[in-house]
Amino acid sequence: MIVYCVEVSLIKGREKDFLNATEENHLNTRKETGNVRFDVLQQQDDPSRFFLYEVYKSDEAVKSHKETAHYLKWRETVAPWMASPRKGTCHLPHFPKDETKW
Amino acid sequence: MIVYCVEVSLIKGREKDFLNATEENHLNTRKETGNVRFDVLQQQDDPSRFFLYEVYKSDEAVKSHKETAHYLKWRETVAPWMASPRKGTCHLPHFPKDETKW
Repeated sequence: MIVYCVEVSLIKGREKDFLNATEENHLNTRKETGNVRFDVLQQQDDPSRFFLYEVYKSDEAVKSHKETAHYLKWRETVAPWMASPRKGTCHLPHFPKDETKW
Repeated sequence: MIVYCVEVSLIKGREKDFLNATEENHLNTRKETGNVRFDVLQQQDDPSRFFLYEVYKSDEAVKSHKETAHYLKWRETVAPWMASPRKGTCHLPHFPKDETKW
């Protein structure tokens, strides 16, 4: 498994647009066979900052996700709303040890 | 619900010690009635960096967690292994909308 975290900083005023576009991406990504979680969060002390917590079964599943129509549509839709480039970081999960708890 | 993310940067060579201490904190925190998740991750391109993804039912549950014996023991145990101060960030969850999916 692999966890892909994405930090997002938006132009002020685009929060609602971003959430609408990202809900669609969230719902479709959760239908991918290689996806385990796709949590969408908003930073409490700075509502212009969002955090995506994406869990996939493998590196291949991440690659497949980035080739889906819903991801490509999301990427294009949200691009003009970014205040700075998104920052993605890959992590290896240690706990929970039991993969069924993800 | 609230999601508390913690970025950890370790002194090199303390990775295994940190994982042992954090597994105990993970297991005990998951038993707290106000805790929903406690994921422990290691950054893929820098094994000295860890990420804790902690989901709680409320602000009060976060506060209660920080008063538990297992959290206080963990904090004291890992303190000498930090290469820099831990960075914690609070987030509000948007998706999944269904709280039972957390």
